Amino acid sequence: MPLSPNSIGLFTGTVLLGSDIPARYRHDRSGHVPSGAPEALVSAANVDDVRHAVRLAADSGWSVVVRGAGSGLAGAAAAGAGALVLDVSGLDQILEIATSDELAVVQPGVSAAVLDTEAHRHGLRYTPDPASTAISTIGGNIATNAGGLRCVKYGVTGDSVLGLTVVLADGELLHTGRRTAKGVAGFDLTSLFVGSEGTLGVIVAATVRLQPVPVDTVTVAAYFADIEQAAAACAAVLTARVRPAMLELLDEASLREAQNLLGVRAEAAGAFVVAQTDGFGARAEADRIAETFGRVTARVRVGTDAEAAHELLAVRRAALPALERHGRVLIEDIAVPRSRIAEAARKITEIAARHDSRIYTFGHAGDGNLHPIIVVPTDDPDAHPRAVAAADEIFATALELGGTITGEHGIGVLKRDWLACELGPRALRVQLAVRRALDPNALFNPGKAV
Amino acid sequence: MPLSPNSIGLFTGTVLLGSDIPARYRHDRSGHVPSGAPEALVSAANVDDVRHAVRLAADSGWSVVVRGAGSGLAGAAAAGAGALVLDVSGLDQILEIATSDELAVVQPGVSAAVLDTEAHRHGLRYTPDPASTAISTIGGNIATNAGGLRCVKYGVTGDSVLGLTVVLADGELLHTGRRTAKGVAGFDLTSLFVGSEGTLGVIVAATVRLQPVPVDTVTVAAYFADIEQAAAACAAVLTARVRPAMLELLDEASLREAQNLLGVRAEAAGAFVVAQTDGFGARAEADRIAETFGRVTARVRVGTDAEAAHELLAVRRAALPALERHGRVLIEDIAVPRSRIAEAARKITEIAARHDSRIYTFGHAGDGNLHPIIVVPTDDPDAHPRAVAAADEIFATALELGGTITGEHGIGVLKRDWLACELGPRALRVQLAVRRALDPNALFNPGKAV
Repeated sequence: MPLSPNSIGLFTGTVLLGSDIPARYRHDRSGHVPSGAPEALVSAANVDDVRHAVRLAADSGWSVVVRGAGSGLAGAAAAGAGALVLDVSGLDQILEIATSDELAVVQPGVSAAVLDTEAHRHGLRYTPDPASTAISTIGGNIATNAGGLRCVKYGVTGDSVLGLTVVLADGELLHTGRRTAKGVAGFDLTSLFVGSEGTLGVIVAATVRLQPVPVDTVTVAAYFADIEQAAAACAAVLTARVRPAMLELLDEASLREAQNLLGVRAEAAGAFVVAQTDGFGARAEADRIAETFGRVTARVRVGTDAEAAHELLAVRRAALPALERHGRVLIEDIAVPRSRIAEAARKITEIAARHDSRIYTFGHAGDGNLHPIIVVPTDDPDAHPRAVAAADEIFATALELGGTITGEHGIGVLKRDWLACELGPRALRVQLAVRRALDPNALFNPGKAV
Repeated sequence: MPLSPNSIGLFTGTVLLGSDIPARYRHDRSGHVPSGAPEALVSAANVDDVRHAVRLAADSGWSVVVRGAGSGLAGAAAAGAGALVLDVSGLDQILEIATSDELAVVQPGVSAAVLDTEAHRHGLRYTPDPASTAISTIGGNIATNAGGLRCVKYGVTGDSVLGLTVVLADGELLHTGRRTAKGVAGFDLTSLFVGSEGTLGVIVAATVRLQPVPVDTVTVAAYFADIEQAAAACAAVLTARVRPAMLELLDEASLREAQNLLGVRAEAAGAFVVAQTDGFGARAEADRIAETFGRVTARVRVGTDAEAAHELLAVRRAALPALERHGRVLIEDIAVPRSRIAEAARKITEIAARHDSRIYTFGHAGDGNLHPIIVVPTDDPDAHPRAVAAADEIFATALELGGTITGEHGIGVLKRDWLACELGPRALRVQLAVRRALDPNALFNPGKAV
């Protein structure tokens, strides 16, 4: 029995066992609850706690389920029988901001929003902005390679990660990457850990890029007749050589719900697009966008200050909260080649009709990353199986269109069956070989992700 | 003896054995020539040839040394006794340019310059631009994660790679990545192959991002009193929130040599910087750069058309050819945090004096990536050992300053001893475990890179 008072005494943070562990540590925001309850919860107060916890789990025959804010959408942090939950949200310090090198070193429990706020004091910002930025942690953002609204210009979370410090399965520390803008010494292990969903090690520190706060930001929004017209307008913006910092799309139903939630005058339209430009060319790029949109719709709004930007973006930000009022939501996350967005949206509408489900689609048009939201009313017991069938058809559609089953949320437990369809058996075997190389005894998140 | 007429008959491309193999297949541009000569040369005509060659080598107990243009600078393509050289430069087709999805699918033997030219016909460009772009292949660019002049804004080669098709050690094909802008299904194996220097598999196709040709490009050049002043001016440009597409620095000696080669009026200066901006904000950003430089030097030139850009960039492009006239050159490739550039350059000058070596430094100031070029006169037999000792001190300096021994050229055979210093024993062990997971029998490039 390794869990002697001595081993408990090693920890600076809190250790809870069995039934003392609050129920919320069993699941994340996906709603997936595994069978059984975790064996132990370590709320790490420092890196040594993480190392001790990993060793304790290995010695006890438990698995390690790493957890930050528990805001994941794919179940990667779900913890059932046999698991030690390792909560790293207490490692929440910004260790360094190096202004002239435009980078920060942070612990995993820092939120992207807090880092961004702190960076602003130095004239810098942290560009990754997952929709969950206020509630999620940067460790979780890295573990899922989270996306967000600004990816179309600034890339996903991984594009801002220069290096990591990771606790491996043997409890030892690994440093990957660097503090320099470039570097090619050895394999890119940093990118391997980014998006690995807790299966390769525990991220205990990250060196991330910062970028200057742009000199100017302009927001452009427009209402379109239908999703095809909106998607074509988005494509035309990119063809016009504009690189917007955001290019977001809402379908008719999402727009209506968001307007209802905000209590604004409902402006009926078949689709809504909001774009943002930033940097020295922001106004010229915004003009080009407004002109491009203006060729097909008269309803174009341009906002040049923060207040106007906030107002124009409010509809986009309200979309998900508006839908969550109507029941449980399945938040899907496909990405397709940008040229197939309208086709994907139309097929989703057909799938909704076929499965008698309410599906609302919005997302990142600039990346081809769509979030079909399936609302499952709580008063209809048959709605859930219909929703699951609809989700399966949505995944199949994404793959048919040359896309992926997950653009930014990850595989977790919810999409494991579909991962094999996307990757195929050989790629899956290679992925498993890499996983075994780093975690030969399957300590980290067994049965999840790959 | 597996090399029967039958197995030779499997190949569409050419197969040469033993002494029939031209000597140039033993080395790349690093000048490193291994002991012994390769056993076989397969000049692949198609993907099946690559698969047959890999299996032939495995059956024959040979290693596989993949080769594109042979323009590598670290010896990764050097091939000695026991090696089958697999020349993939004949796989030189652009398979697809998908304009609206802004991507191309290419074979490894295509050069970045050719792809870029072809992309321009579609209003697009391929942004990675290694200095070798006209002579190297994109397969080699990917295998080394090559940098170039535009990395400061557009990233290194890997940042443009969406997916790969790779022949693994068992001769089977692996597809990694995707055609979508985002995607997080499984580990990022694409990034693992990028920069792996021929140690994990043979890249036979790549899906790469294209970007729109910028609407405007402006070039700014300036002469400074010394390297400290130039480095400070570069830092001030970045602090002024400008994102130049290039930010290149030459020290006094490189500048003089480049001017000599070009036959232009030698304009004496302690350092030279050339910057380029592009996109909708190009002029505003160039104005900001000129203003920033103008605070410390009166000698600032701005060029707004292609001809002026060509003239201002000519000095930068002439630097290496100018030095190659004076003897053999050791092309070093350190990167340091940007704030340490001037310090690195000064230390390199001291190292040159200490080892009685001629070292010229230029490079990518925006990335902190410096190329100290050690000229080894052919008429001085003691110059080479002095140069090697100087190079060792340069590597040590890079690490001391928090940098890396290679920003964009790779480890190959030349920097293997230093790799362990940079990574440390644990990281090296993890790297080797990953390598073994993909290539358990050490078929690919044994003794190189990791």
